[in-house]
Amino acid sequence: MGIENITVGEFVEQVSSKEPVPGGGAVGAVVAALAAGLTEMVANLTIGKKKYKEWEGEMERVVSEMEKTKEELYLIAKKDMDAFNAFMEAMKLPKNTEEEKKIRQEKMQGALKGAIDVPYELARKARDIIKQTEIVTEFGNKNAVSDALSAAELCKAAFEIAKANVYINLKYLKDEKLKEYYEQETDELEKQVYGSYNRIKEMIKENGWL
Amino acid sequence: MGIENITVGEFVEQVSSKEPVPGGGAVGAVVAALAAGLTEMVANLTIGKKKYKEWEGEMERVVSEMEKTKEELYLIAKKDMDAFNAFMEAMKLPKNTEEEKKIRQEKMQGALKGAIDVPYELARKARDIIKQTEIVTEFGNKNAVSDALSAAELCKAAFEIAKANVYINLKYLKDEKLKEYYEQETDELEKQVYGSYNRIKEMIKENGWL
Repeated sequence: MGIENITVGEFVEQVSSKEPVPGGGAVGAVVAALAAGLTEMVANLTIGKKKYKEWEGEMERVVSEMEKTKEELYLIAKKDMDAFNAFMEAMKLPKNTEEEKKIRQEKMQGALKGAIDVPYELARKARDIIKQTEIVTEFGNKNAVSDALSAAELCKAAFEIAKANVYINLKYLKDEKLKEYYEQETDELEKQVYGSYNRIKEMIKENGWL
Repeated sequence: MGIENITVGEFVEQVSSKEPVPGGGAVGAVVAALAAGLTEMVANLTIGKKKYKEWEGEMERVVSEMEKTKEELYLIAKKDMDAFNAFMEAMKLPKNTEEEKKIRQEKMQGALKGAIDVPYELARKARDIIKQTEIVTEFGNKNAVSDALSAAELCKAAFEIAKANVYINLKYLKDEKLKEYYEQETDELEKQVYGSYNRIKEMIKENGWL
């Protein structure tokens, strides 16, 4: 069952249990979905308001983008749990002969790539969302500015969670080129996320919106 | 119906809609519940492990504290929505005569106090949780350190969301003494939250746990 179909309380209980999944990765995806939801809410609270008429089309675009993003995030939460389970399965493979050791090692490295790629995808989503949060903060309904700021805080947290999950798995990845690729890409995403975050904070402060 | 009994997808949709509640406040409470859940998971992954035997009692205490905290957070989410609705009701009161204006003003200021006190309570919970996150980071299972860090990120985000909601309402509060009280208390909580957060980051970095 998809994460979106279980109750909030049940999800929190599954996180709390000693089962390692759902863990930080799935939680990060849900947090990013909440950030997308808050960003969409600010856009929805702007649509239909005379004062913001000229931004109506832009706000409608944000709503539709966030709708799509939320569905993708539920899928990421599922993929995160699958990737972890695939790694655990590979770990259980026999390692009595050299041949078995080799196969196990290859399967583990393959599963590891999944365990890195899923949170990396989450990091990209956090970046995509905060870019929209920046737009609704600047041009959206100012009565909802605390919600826009809340969305920005959650994008930053989701990004940091994603980054931690990329890095904890990168430690075991043997493909040095791929390792370097993920490190550079994550660094670049970090700059973009913090760029948007700082601009949002600055905008709110300079204009005394909060 | 309590927020813990609706599905994750439904909650995200309620947040996304143009209805202002549930907004940042309720989202912040759910995010704090996820932080409590992750902190509890790290404690649960520590209990029963030989290597961490001496911390077993402490970890059991963390589990039981987080269980209680999660229930309190669901209540805060509910109170946050109620406080907003109470304020909107007061706003709708008639204001034709001086007497009516006075009554409306009093009711609004009363509702405002609720709208400030609920996120303030959330800010305190975020502080309470991150203190436990600090303990599980230091003494808990190191295989779950990325989950401990994820919990810390969520405590910080929940605190910032709470702070934004305290401040947006403080703007309209006329009781200067009470205003000052909330400002000072929020500042103090901020120091504590960031103190724990920085120590968690430092510990992880210094020991190369991630």
